[in-house]
Amino acid sequence: MPFGKLHPALGGRSGPDVIPFSSDTLERSGAEMAFLATPNETSAEVGPELLARGIRVIDLAGAFRLRDAAAYPAWYGFVHPAPALLAEAVYGLTEWCGDELAGARLVANPGCYPTSVLLALRPLLGLLDPSQPVICDSKSGVSGAGKKSEVAYSFAELSGNFKAYAVGTHRHEPEMRQELGISGDTPFVFVPHLLPAVRGILSTIHVSFPSPVLPESLAAAYAVYARAPFVRVRPAGELPELSDVVGTPRGDIGFTLLPGRRRAVLVSVIDNLLKGAASQAVQNMNRVFGFAETEGLA
Amino acid sequence: MPFGKLHPALGGRSGPDVIPFSSDTLERSGAEMAFLATPNETSAEVGPELLARGIRVIDLAGAFRLRDAAAYPAWYGFVHPAPALLAEAVYGLTEWCGDELAGARLVANPGCYPTSVLLALRPLLGLLDPSQPVICDSKSGVSGAGKKSEVAYSFAELSGNFKAYAVGTHRHEPEMRQELGISGDTPFVFVPHLLPAVRGILSTIHVSFPSPVLPESLAAAYAVYARAPFVRVRPAGELPELSDVVGTPRGDIGFTLLPGRRRAVLVSVIDNLLKGAASQAVQNMNRVFGFAETEGLA
Amino acid sequence: MPFGKLHPALGGRSGPDVIPFSSDTLERSGAEMAFLATPNETSAEVGPELLARGIRVIDLAGAFRLRDAAAYPAWYGFVHPAPALLAEAVYGLTEWCGDELAGARLVANPGCYPTSVLLALRPLLGLLDPSQPVICDSKSGVSGAGKKSEVAYSFAELSGNFKAYAVGTHRHEPEMRQELGISGDTPFVFVPHLLPAVRGILSTIHVSFPSPVLPESLAAAYAVYARAPFVRVRPAGELPELSDVVGTPRGDIGFTLLPGRRRAVLVSVIDNLLKGAASQAVQNMNRVFGFAETEGLA
Amino acid sequence: MPFGKLHPALGGRSGPDVIPFSSDTLERSGAEMAFLATPNETSAEVGPELLARGIRVIDLAGAFRLRDAAAYPAWYGFVHPAPALLAEAVYGLTEWCGDELAGARLVANPGCYPTSVLLALRPLLGLLDPSQPVICDSKSGVSGAGKKSEVAYSFAELSGNFKAYAVGTHRHEPEMRQELGISGDTPFVFVPHLLPAVRGILSTIHVSFPSPVLPESLAAAYAVYARAPFVRVRPAGELPELSDVVGTPRGDIGFTLLPGRRRAVLVSVIDNLLKGAASQAVQNMNRVFGFAETEGLA
Repeated sequence: MPFGKLHPALGGRSGPDVIPFSSDTLERSGAEMAFLATPNETSAEVGPELLARGIRVIDLAGAFRLRDAAAYPAWYGFVHPAPALLAEAVYGLTEWCGDELAGARLVANPGCYPTSVLLALRPLLGLLDPSQPVICDSKSGVSGAGKKSEVAYSFAELSGNFKAYAVGTHRHEPEMRQELGISGDTPFVFVPHLLPAVRGILSTIHVSFPSPVLPESLAAAYAVYARAPFVRVRPAGELPELSDVVGTPRGDIGFTLLPGRRRAVLVSVIDNLLKGAASQAVQNMNRVFGFAETEGLA
Repeated sequence: MPFGKLHPALGGRSGPDVIPFSSDTLERSGAEMAFLATPNETSAEVGPELLARGIRVIDLAGAFRLRDAAAYPAWYGFVHPAPALLAEAVYGLTEWCGDELAGARLVANPGCYPTSVLLALRPLLGLLDPSQPVICDSKSGVSGAGKKSEVAYSFAELSGNFKAYAVGTHRHEPEMRQELGISGDTPFVFVPHLLPAVRGILSTIHVSFPSPVLPESLAAAYAVYARAPFVRVRPAGELPELSDVVGTPRGDIGFTLLPGRRRAVLVSVIDNLLKGAASQAVQNMNRVFGFAETEGLA
Repeated sequence: MPFGKLHPALGGRSGPDVIPFSSDTLERSGAEMAFLATPNETSAEVGPELLARGIRVIDLAGAFRLRDAAAYPAWYGFVHPAPALLAEAVYGLTEWCGDELAGARLVANPGCYPTSVLLALRPLLGLLDPSQPVICDSKSGVSGAGKKSEVAYSFAELSGNFKAYAVGTHRHEPEMRQELGISGDTPFVFVPHLLPAVRGILSTIHVSFPSPVLPESLAAAYAVYARAPFVRVRPAGELPELSDVVGTPRGDIGFTLLPGRRRAVLVSVIDNLLKGAASQAVQNMNRVFGFAETEGLA
Repeated sequence: MPFGKLHPALGGRSGPDVIPFSSDTLERSGAEMAFLATPNETSAEVGPELLARGIRVIDLAGAFRLRDAAAYPAWYGFVHPAPALLAEAVYGLTEWCGDELAGARLVANPGCYPTSVLLALRPLLGLLDPSQPVICDSKSGVSGAGKKSEVAYSFAELSGNFKAYAVGTHRHEPEMRQELGISGDTPFVFVPHLLPAVRGILSTIHVSFPSPVLPESLAAAYAVYARAPFVRVRPAGELPELSDVVGTPRGDIGFTLLPGRRRAVLVSVIDNLLKGAASQAVQNMNRVFGFAETEGLA
């Protein structure tokens, strides 16, 4: 299907040509990189084929996000066909990648929920009280589910509605635990919700500290993003809202200490289709090829 | 499927029992009347069966709305299996029904668009300029399409969107022409649109008069509704909006004369699920059995 | 302003008469009870006047919810003018009221957020691990803020948006602590959010237990609602969504145990305008006068 | 107010500097052109000041759209302070401007409704039946009203709502009549409506022809846009929807002939904030300075 037919707003007057996909046509076209926005199982099959033909891959699905091949049957419902590649794949949460991105053959683009949670949580990992739970209460617009012809995603069902879903069973959860270095027993709770909105994820993250902390300490931890072009940390007490980032390639992070200063509420917002998917993929491509990180995005 | 499962908000703590439908079980249950909210073709098949067993029928589909059986193949896509019943069926635009409703065996409940258009237009028929077009520019919430698992009715497609559809081909058009007494050649235009809202229809109707009219003349024509419990005519120049009627069994009508007083804009609003369907069906039942018209609705 | 002008959908064909309010006119009208849906400070002034004239009061504002008069300046911004009444006021979370409602002169109708949180949390209080936080991540439709002419509540700002607000400072928080019997130091976190929806509150509540629990134990604790006409507890693992209760006087509660069974996620939904305000007020009135609790609501 | 504070999504990490506006600071900054997005009366005052200092002006308000100064008191509520400029101002419906834009000092950027209506209607002017009305039934997202702190524009009022407004009195009407060359008596009807959506205008335009026309004739008339980079004409019978253009600088036009081919329905969609305001202003600037028309927009 021509792209302009699927998304007329993006189609321009005529729209770009569409090449029916095959590893063959792609190789002959001289492509150096492929972005896979395919079902998880398709990515797992097609990715190795492309790599074998010398085409780099950024996978927007979850086929290469988990390092443990044994986790795939339970969380993704299939036996991984190329487990050897899991060790090679770079988990592309761009701001947390170092030199391993430069020249990488295979990048696992993070899930949208994990991107929102990890951006806010990773800088604070060393400060948290391990006896207390980390609770990620996340809310996503419906485009996170893709183009779906299901009653559950119909306007009549979702307008004016809101719900939690997949509690304890969402396949983005193992990816977060892996990247946070949290084992299965540690108190980590992730509850995704479906917003009556098209785009964006807001994660409200509840954390605890072993002793009172100062706002300045949290700000210092977040200074890791001082030069990151697409992460914006707000002053203490100023929480971002969803519309601050929808349509942008940026993640915004805010935090508020609660009375007693042993607990904090973090709020992290991204556009699930951009920093949670497409624009992060472009950020990763820029780093793979040594382009400026903001190329095509600023 | 139990009703409370389909619509949890309406289900109460346990929900009513659900009887698997058949003409047989219905007859044995002692039912005196059946409301059919079935596909058009199903109504056309089941309606005669029920009548044969002495059960009256109010059909919320379109199976008995057109008096001309020959129109069914073109507009509804099937040859009518019981053409003889079309003459008997009462077209149940309640406010325009007289004694024929009392004791009726078969009522064709009007379509939602026709209800909104006819309520505003019928009182003015004698005043219009036949050389000028009557233009019905109607806008409906998405519940008009029923529970649909189609991408076109998904939240992601409809939120923030708006469109015209089925111009010149909507099957509510012949029903309007029939009830207005307008032949195929007379300039009558009906354009339905899909609103990013769940419930309600607003029809903007553009009419012309052969010579200047006074607001009082239009108000006098609408006085036909003075004692109608579910139609509310606004003072000249005050146009109702959709939320004035959503969740109510009422139709609201407003009108504004344009400079020169030879043209007017009529605005008619109903809740498509109530006055455009369910509550009008109950109104009709009340009239069939001689109950107060407002029974169960006020 | 006549009621039908403010809410045309509720106005019927003519609308009820509106009596300009004063304690005087109310007394002369023979009213036995007044529902105050006034600003907090107005309720605190008017409530005692009405009581002095022998008119019972159900206050939908927060003027009589806190038992500690000293809390009013900090949380509500005024010195309470009638502190003696705070001890008399019955906190009207109907399902948790006993005989004290019968014949009560003054009922403090609970806030909408507290209603959603307390209904789900109170039955479990004896089961919780006091060393672990209780986290209430609540999301409300915008009607919770009343009719507001502020840019922040405009369609353009809220459509497609979502945000947390008033973290640690929302005036519903002391009311929850009071009714849960939680002191200021105990780890209790309440974060309200604003949904792009008109009606309803969904609270996601994160709780911990000192040792693994069975779903049956939670179900047993919730059996306290077995005969409550307006609370519906779902089977373990089935979480209600907002639309299950919007437009109803009911609260729905669901729960899911997480792996290890030492943590659970509770989801509680109400219509903020009904169980969170108006219908709970009517429930309370029914109990005050000894009517059936469902009178006017079922 | 810094721009990034008003629109955080557009603000980047720091946001551009904001210069407090005065003709003086603007002149000293070396600006060659100013875009005025100010109230109508402010534009009428400030525009002449800027021109006097040699700064070209594109006015996004209505201060220079009407050629007849006498029309301002009735339609805009003020006596025009600089009537002599009305003859000089170029009405900037870009696709219909010729050489007069090159080097123009003062451009009156068209209103959003007029842009949507004129783009679809002007190519057909020579084909229409003058005895029949042209009816423009337009529907706009709420951003057309600007940032408003009024209850009427609140989410609670607009969500799920829809209404007609300003029938016969909207100040965009004289601008359309002027550009169509239609006198006050000719049957031209414009009815604006408010959609529960943030962005975009869809105009449904009902036209008549003196004798039957072929789709090819309409397509031929629209061929005037064959090389226009920001107007896309659809094949006969394919009507654009709002989301086809939201977020783009483009207008899309579709048409359908009704049975008998003496009447047609035109559908025209634009993003009211872009082709209906900002991007058309940039298009005009490009033409004023001789840049490529798509500069900064494609």
